[in-house]
Amino acid sequence: MPQTPPTRFAYLGPEGTFAEAALSRAVAPGEGVRQPAVSVAAALAAVRAGEADAALVPLENSVEGSVPATMDGLAEGDRLVVTREVFLTVSFVLAARPGTTLDGVGGVVSHPHALAQTARTLARLLPGVPTLPASSTAAAARAVAEGAHDAAVCAPIAAERYGLVPLAEDVADHPGAVTRFVLVSRPGALPAPTGNDKTSLVVVVADRTGALLDVLREFAVRGISLTRIESRPTRDRLWVYSFSLDCEGHVAEARVGEALAALHRVCEDVRFLGSYPRADGRTNRPVPDESADTAFAEAGRWLAGLRTGDA
Amino acid sequence: MPQTPPTRFAYLGPEGTFAEAALSRAVAPGEGVRQPAVSVAAALAAVRAGEADAALVPLENSVEGSVPATMDGLAEGDRLVVTREVFLTVSFVLAARPGTTLDGVGGVVSHPHALAQTARTLARLLPGVPTLPASSTAAAARAVAEGAHDAAVCAPIAAERYGLVPLAEDVADHPGAVTRFVLVSRPGALPAPTGNDKTSLVVVVADRTGALLDVLREFAVRGISLTRIESRPTRDRLWVYSFSLDCEGHVAEARVGEALAALHRVCEDVRFLGSYPRADGRTNRPVPDESADTAFAEAGRWLAGLRTGDA
Amino acid sequence: MPQTPPTRFAYLGPEGTFAEAALSRAVAPGEGVRQPAVSVAAALAAVRAGEADAALVPLENSVEGSVPATMDGLAEGDRLVVTREVFLTVSFVLAARPGTTLDGVGGVVSHPHALAQTARTLARLLPGVPTLPASSTAAAARAVAEGAHDAAVCAPIAAERYGLVPLAEDVADHPGAVTRFVLVSRPGALPAPTGNDKTSLVVVVADRTGALLDVLREFAVRGISLTRIESRPTRDRLWVYSFSLDCEGHVAEARVGEALAALHRVCEDVRFLGSYPRADGRTNRPVPDESADTAFAEAGRWLAGLRTGDA
Amino acid sequence: MPQTPPTRFAYLGPEGTFAEAALSRAVAPGEGVRQPAVSVAAALAAVRAGEADAALVPLENSVEGSVPATMDGLAEGDRLVVTREVFLTVSFVLAARPGTTLDGVGGVVSHPHALAQTARTLARLLPGVPTLPASSTAAAARAVAEGAHDAAVCAPIAAERYGLVPLAEDVADHPGAVTRFVLVSRPGALPAPTGNDKTSLVVVVADRTGALLDVLREFAVRGISLTRIESRPTRDRLWVYSFSLDCEGHVAEARVGEALAALHRVCEDVRFLGSYPRADGRTNRPVPDESADTAFAEAGRWLAGLRTGDA
Repeated sequence: MPQTPPTRFAYLGPEGTFAEAALSRAVAPGEGVRQPAVSVAAALAAVRAGEADAALVPLENSVEGSVPATMDGLAEGDRLVVTREVFLTVSFVLAARPGTTLDGVGGVVSHPHALAQTARTLARLLPGVPTLPASSTAAAARAVAEGAHDAAVCAPIAAERYGLVPLAEDVADHPGAVTRFVLVSRPGALPAPTGNDKTSLVVVVADRTGALLDVLREFAVRGISLTRIESRPTRDRLWVYSFSLDCEGHVAEARVGEALAALHRVCEDVRFLGSYPRADGRTNRPVPDESADTAFAEAGRWLAGLRTGDA
Repeated sequence: MPQTPPTRFAYLGPEGTFAEAALSRAVAPGEGVRQPAVSVAAALAAVRAGEADAALVPLENSVEGSVPATMDGLAEGDRLVVTREVFLTVSFVLAARPGTTLDGVGGVVSHPHALAQTARTLARLLPGVPTLPASSTAAAARAVAEGAHDAAVCAPIAAERYGLVPLAEDVADHPGAVTRFVLVSRPGALPAPTGNDKTSLVVVVADRTGALLDVLREFAVRGISLTRIESRPTRDRLWVYSFSLDCEGHVAEARVGEALAALHRVCEDVRFLGSYPRADGRTNRPVPDESADTAFAEAGRWLAGLRTGDA
Repeated sequence: MPQTPPTRFAYLGPEGTFAEAALSRAVAPGEGVRQPAVSVAAALAAVRAGEADAALVPLENSVEGSVPATMDGLAEGDRLVVTREVFLTVSFVLAARPGTTLDGVGGVVSHPHALAQTARTLARLLPGVPTLPASSTAAAARAVAEGAHDAAVCAPIAAERYGLVPLAEDVADHPGAVTRFVLVSRPGALPAPTGNDKTSLVVVVADRTGALLDVLREFAVRGISLTRIESRPTRDRLWVYSFSLDCEGHVAEARVGEALAALHRVCEDVRFLGSYPRADGRTNRPVPDESADTAFAEAGRWLAGLRTGDA
Repeated sequence: MPQTPPTRFAYLGPEGTFAEAALSRAVAPGEGVRQPAVSVAAALAAVRAGEADAALVPLENSVEGSVPATMDGLAEGDRLVVTREVFLTVSFVLAARPGTTLDGVGGVVSHPHALAQTARTLARLLPGVPTLPASSTAAAARAVAEGAHDAAVCAPIAAERYGLVPLAEDVADHPGAVTRFVLVSRPGALPAPTGNDKTSLVVVVADRTGALLDVLREFAVRGISLTRIESRPTRDRLWVYSFSLDCEGHVAEARVGEALAALHRVCEDVRFLGSYPRADGRTNRPVPDESADTAFAEAGRWLAGLRTGDA
């Protein structure tokens, strides 16, 4: 973690969203001040402006894919770095005020995305019952608590916060969807390597045939696996592409550091978005012997000896 | 276009969405029957079931990124192929019933995504006025037409369809956002090559270091540029990744055909999603001489001569 | 072997050289007519002129390296193809007329290369005895038979032919040196694939950074191992290089054929020098499943189906 | 040049060979002591034993190819480094004692290689006149000076040394053949970079498909051109190959140093054979901007900043 641990946290609000739940995973209860933000952009802006020390925002979802607001929000503006990733299984509940039964539900409210992800289950549980949009799943829960609607599709944390009880749990049509959240800060001391870390980058290349190949080659020659890649057209420059990448390893490792330095030389732009402990429950590939820090150190000594003529 | 031109079109509804506008670009007015579908999945299912000949669905947006429902809907289930792509500038209007003025607007309704993309403009035009969610921009327009709300953020086509008039045009905070739609059909005769085509694929690879590099190499050695790449974790198979790719060229070209055949050999799976005219206003890179069909044909004759000993 | 088996053989003479011994390995005794040639160039010229059907010439030696006369003789002029390779252990004997003993040897004659390769052994066997040059090891043996000198370093076949007896066998300082000979013919029907074949090529590339890498990539993407590579500067074209290559596999295999066709497209020039059974006692690497002929055939059918829309 | 300039030079003898002529190009007249050696191995051994400070030996010839004795002599044993390369046009003269005319020549003596390279010219000048082998071109000149033969094919320096006069100059069938000699020393301070240098290496790799490709990739990703490559089978280890390589650039350059360090990590063995001024009259390719020392330095600073969090 950065040298001065963050104490003021922004997160994608409102209260009761999955982002708040993710933040609870990243930060011990009672630690720090937590402030919901109206949007990803607002959460990132709060960190950039120094109004918050860190922001917890969603990066991608196993069903919905990338969150462009986060991707673009990190790729542009003052540089921020990820210090932690949090994976949260998105478990929707159908929640209502105590005493309500399925028979008594005349309408279900939620964010359109949540309604889309639970459409078949709702049709089975509540055939013919209309659905109504809300600006967030938490707002839907609050509206139910206030009596405006009968039931909401929301996160368990929202049901709990607004005093609702579940009429049904795990109502997602494809249960097990996972959202990856990241905690981002202004650049500073990096999280120490743990031996199982990830590094995130945004790389901009001129679009000649094979430009991306050249980027990937810098990782491959140093034995580094990628875990995510996504091309993003640059809005204003014809034939210039950016790639959002995650790779295994920590920038403090020689193999990762040399790869980043190489990209810095050969790409139009490289933005380092942090090295942080891997938290998806997977273990990085073993570092090949020839890419280990010891191998780089040994090769560096050998080279130094060649140059001075002492070896 | 396929041998029997499609006459029954599904599109992501409801009526008045940008998808309907895109379909109007792809198909002449009065041609065919058009049926809105409640979701991307429903539109694709209609084609697979033979209830529609083609579906018009959004694939990616320059602001919002990929549309996972389309990506996954094409990557899974019976294979479908893209026969056409349509790019549509997403131009939001702030629409109201005739006679309404800005001063008289007490609330603005729209899909949460549209509200997000116009938040700053709305704050400037209508300071302090609350926003309300709807299930689609078209539904918002209809709600205004029915008198439930004062103003909607919607597509021009929706305003027109519901008899609304614009209070303000181009209200997006970042004007010029473009959505890429695709028209998909069941496999059949492919659109003829035009000299400026794209080909779409989904490739599944075992995740060893450099697996993606090997995929890209098959394009690079044959002089083929990629225009989009996106990794998608496979949900059920640890360490297996899929990549959604667009490249320049048509499968009828030798260079593209040989590259696809190579991927078929070396990857765990390759799904061909069609070759179709490029419609983003850009022109493909010139095909290098050594990758032209004539070069492949000449090399094939040379090889045949070597093998028979006649050359 | 070519359709009409060769019956007239040229070889690097004179009689009694290792080339004649190698020819005896390639062609059964009593089969065909054998004619020594004064040089590699003369042997190749005899084949090109139709005066011989095949020539047996040395290509490389494990101690002496490549034989440039053969390398260049095959790279230039009318194309010839290798139909067979023969490996011969170069076993020198110290030979003399019957009745001669080591004590009675006052001088040793041989080709300077043979004297160089046996210098230490001769110094041990015959300390202080002078060595004298001859134009070939066979000429040295003949000179001893004629009484001009006491002993010769030569091939066992030369000792036998000239009625000499060995004073010492295996007199090479590094015993076990192997020479690789090739039997070359005018282009015609190729030797049938045996499952353990080699293919030889000469490739000319413009010398930009990475040009050789691009050549090797065409082999690597198709799972083909190289067994030899040697750059040769082109004499007359600045910054143009040629590479002499041997790879595993037969041009009749899909993987090798496609690789050669690719080189034909991307290189300045490719000269095919034959596919022939591997004879160095080693077995080719197993063909990876994805590079087997069956994989290419299956991929070809898949591609054909995509193009017609039937699959 | 090494810190203490060499003062005792060995060269491939005897006196009057092209090696002595090459040494005269490398070292000013009157500078140092010059000692002929009976073989390349002996010249290298003298340096290794400290009996000489440097040895001048032939490495390759534009007609004859590599000199395996030098290649292997540098690849094995205690490491030596090249500090200088010298290119010498091999210009043969037909030399005789003063007063001899072509009509009076009854036999021509020389090293068999020289006789082979002048065979056609001799047949034209001296039709029907026999040729006789000598152990070196210099030995042939001496034999003529001593009256044992009428004429010798030798280097101009040998004719001069033994008081012979040319009957014909430039008698090579392919005039213009060039031999590349190298001056080698024990490891010590390297020649300073000149901006137009070469680096020589021997690299040993396990022979899996693509191993050589991986080696070349380390050069290509850093913008380094190769000027020579030659595979050499290792005598004692099955499926292990060594490659003798020359590349552009000096080990003191960041791009070359990092490439060598990478090879040290990924190859079974790397032997550095020196960085020295290019002397073949060609100019290295311009160093790409992204591979210049300044680019490496800038990337290093950027990386350091990322790691400390200061950037």
